[in-house]
Amino acid sequence: MTKTITEKIFSRKCGCDVSAGEMRVVPVDAAMVHDITGPLAVNMFHRMKGGKVFDPEKIIMIFDHQVPADSITAAENHIMMREFAKEQGIYNYDVKEGICHQVALETGKIMPGDIVVGVDSHTCTYGAVGAFSTGIGSTDMGFVLRFGALYFRIPESVRIEADGKFAPRVGAKDLIMKTIGDIGADGATYRAAEFTGQAFEEMEIPGRMTCCNMAIEMGGKAGIVPPDEKTRKWLSQWGDVDAAKAGSFDLKADEGAAYAGKVEYDVGDLVPQVAVPHNVDNVVDIDEVEGTHLDQVFIGSCTNGRYEDFAEAAEVMGARKFSPDVRVIAIPASRTEYLKCLRAGIIEKFVEAGALFEAPCCGPCMGGAFGLIGVEEVSLSTSNRNFRGRQGSTKGEVYLCSPATAAASAIKGVITDPREV
Amino acid sequence: MTKTITEKIFSRKCGCDVSAGEMRVVPVDAAMVHDITGPLAVNMFHRMKGGKVFDPEKIIMIFDHQVPADSITAAENHIMMREFAKEQGIYNYDVKEGICHQVALETGKIMPGDIVVGVDSHTCTYGAVGAFSTGIGSTDMGFVLRFGALYFRIPESVRIEADGKFAPRVGAKDLIMKTIGDIGADGATYRAAEFTGQAFEEMEIPGRMTCCNMAIEMGGKAGIVPPDEKTRKWLSQWGDVDAAKAGSFDLKADEGAAYAGKVEYDVGDLVPQVAVPHNVDNVVDIDEVEGTHLDQVFIGSCTNGRYEDFAEAAEVMGARKFSPDVRVIAIPASRTEYLKCLRAGIIEKFVEAGALFEAPCCGPCMGGAFGLIGVEEVSLSTSNRNFRGRQGSTKGEVYLCSPATAAASAIKGVITDPREV
Repeated sequence: MTKTITEKIFSRKCGCDVSAGEMRVVPVDAAMVHDITGPLAVNMFHRMKGGKVFDPEKIIMIFDHQVPADSITAAENHIMMREFAKEQGIYNYDVKEGICHQVALETGKIMPGDIVVGVDSHTCTYGAVGAFSTGIGSTDMGFVLRFGALYFRIPESVRIEADGKFAPRVGAKDLIMKTIGDIGADGATYRAAEFTGQAFEEMEIPGRMTCCNMAIEMGGKAGIVPPDEKTRKWLSQWGDVDAAKAGSFDLKADEGAAYAGKVEYDVGDLVPQVAVPHNVDNVVDIDEVEGTHLDQVFIGSCTNGRYEDFAEAAEVMGARKFSPDVRVIAIPASRTEYLKCLRAGIIEKFVEAGALFEAPCCGPCMGGAFGLIGVEEVSLSTSNRNFRGRQGSTKGEVYLCSPATAAASAIKGVITDPREV
Repeated sequence: MTKTITEKIFSRKCGCDVSAGEMRVVPVDAAMVHDITGPLAVNMFHRMKGGKVFDPEKIIMIFDHQVPADSITAAENHIMMREFAKEQGIYNYDVKEGICHQVALETGKIMPGDIVVGVDSHTCTYGAVGAFSTGIGSTDMGFVLRFGALYFRIPESVRIEADGKFAPRVGAKDLIMKTIGDIGADGATYRAAEFTGQAFEEMEIPGRMTCCNMAIEMGGKAGIVPPDEKTRKWLSQWGDVDAAKAGSFDLKADEGAAYAGKVEYDVGDLVPQVAVPHNVDNVVDIDEVEGTHLDQVFIGSCTNGRYEDFAEAAEVMGARKFSPDVRVIAIPASRTEYLKCLRAGIIEKFVEAGALFEAPCCGPCMGGAFGLIGVEEVSLSTSNRNFRGRQGSTKGEVYLCSPATAAASAIKGVITDPREV
């Protein structure tokens, strides 16, 4: 029987053929907890009088949302999590390391064909290396921490095929936003978004991370790009690629596999996209919003906080400075990405141009720690959500875009087509 | 009649001889407002139905305490202040520029002999360039914004003479903490601390800033170092030194001037000092607290956030990394200082060693924005206050020290004598 990538991953894990719609309890290869929802999971674990976690090597603990602690409550949560890590022998990626999804992939522990869960909705990011990864609630995570397994209804898949070549200054973020706009915020609910086609084959891992990251914004249970030689090369940065999993690099959907839906794009036709307030699927071509006044521009997040994103922004900037009327906040997704930016001269360039360049963390994306906007202020952001109040005041507005669009707009002080600066 | 520096400054400004104890209304040369107390001052200004400020060129507005906005209220305060700046023609140093006291001096507007007020207790920092500068309340600042003058009781002075040469890895911060320990937190209340002697003559402006900054910690109305050629040279970095004020570079106390108190030090005898919880005048030689467990180390603030401070810390570090058990937060005092650190390789070195290196701002110093500590956690900090709860939980502890001591301690994970690493 022909299978989707998702069905193949679950079949291998279950040791028998399974198909979309079936319910299974499945062991997980890794479980990620962070500083906001992790404490709830740990409390749940304790309520089960758990004793020891299933495998400390497979638990990835990362502090990223409130770092360094932005409230006494956050400090207390961090203390509690550090104590749990210590007593259970779990390595804790503390406040300095960066955003959970970036750091989790940099551990080199997540491989193609793995099943990974995390207490964050954007855990779907790890599909960029061919894993089936998904966000779960803290109660479920309490169970996973103890037993290393979770029940799943194996999801149907939607096939998102993108062929052709991107025009200059148009890229992965524009493609995924276009897709979300077309499919809708609930258009892929509890489905795995399987990305395929020439555009994804030619896309490097950072771009694939951007696309998989936002699968949840169309309701997706996961987003997956078939692993390939690029995946192997990228993963080998972080250590030897697990030989036992080497076969997983061939993972792809069978011809004729059954999909719950299909969309196709020629990315050569794509223009810069913008998600306008207050939903991620309110996506328009940039010409519809060009000239919109901005108060703040944020370049960063698990969606677009990698070296490649900053390098693209820097290329768009050229020798220009940012508008003095816009606050530009730049935050790499991890310490590794920060150091890449620093050594390439990007931090110096950004700060000289007028940006605040912060240590790696989630930053303004979720509107809690810093970089909040006030009444009637407008933020343009490379992050993944623009819900009302997401970055501060419920009377503010958040637009989403690519790093190239963010850079062009930060220079002009208004939403600007990056192809025209 | 012989005069202190303070009496000379007030006499020049009043156009007649005045002495300590007299009350005068005096015009100010500059008025500094920041984002926490500035909004209260602006509200006071509006309650006076003020119309126009006395002189927009003499008002220095800087956002530094809650930047970028760490709450919706902060965002609203920023918006209100920006609108006030715009309507009054005041230049606003927005969220990216750094800490008010550092940025105010970098404007090049504050000259020897000036009288400067600011809505922050550490406004006394500007005595490092021979100004009489002092913190005032927001109500008084409302009046100053409108009328450009304020009543003063001309303060008595205490003379703090320091001769000799500092031993390696002992410096200005150790000297001022030793002085505060000896004089006490209220030992110089409403007095001007006039610093003099070989140690101050040989001290560069950043060290003088550290000493003047902490004059308030012994109750001082101001701290002043006699201006000299080093002052002229430092000020000339920011633009042409005002010719009309050129004479002020000779400002010094008369022989035989009357002081309310005198202390003398030979800095050659000085060892690294630490202020232990929970008061700034609980100062001990470092050997009394060596080995104290640390959870967090903060290098930065208006007291010790300059390039020279980070360079000293970097020298102490050598090729070593920070203890993985300590969170190290490093924040330069201004964008200028940040770029100096970056170009000297200090940011790379710090981040490689395990620090979070943040964009310029007050940071954890006042325990509001980020870098808060929890119950029973211990912070070692190059900032200026260690009051109970100052950096987070009231059940935490804050120790104060020099950048050299902070670096040595961050490497070892416990309070460590920088001369012994």
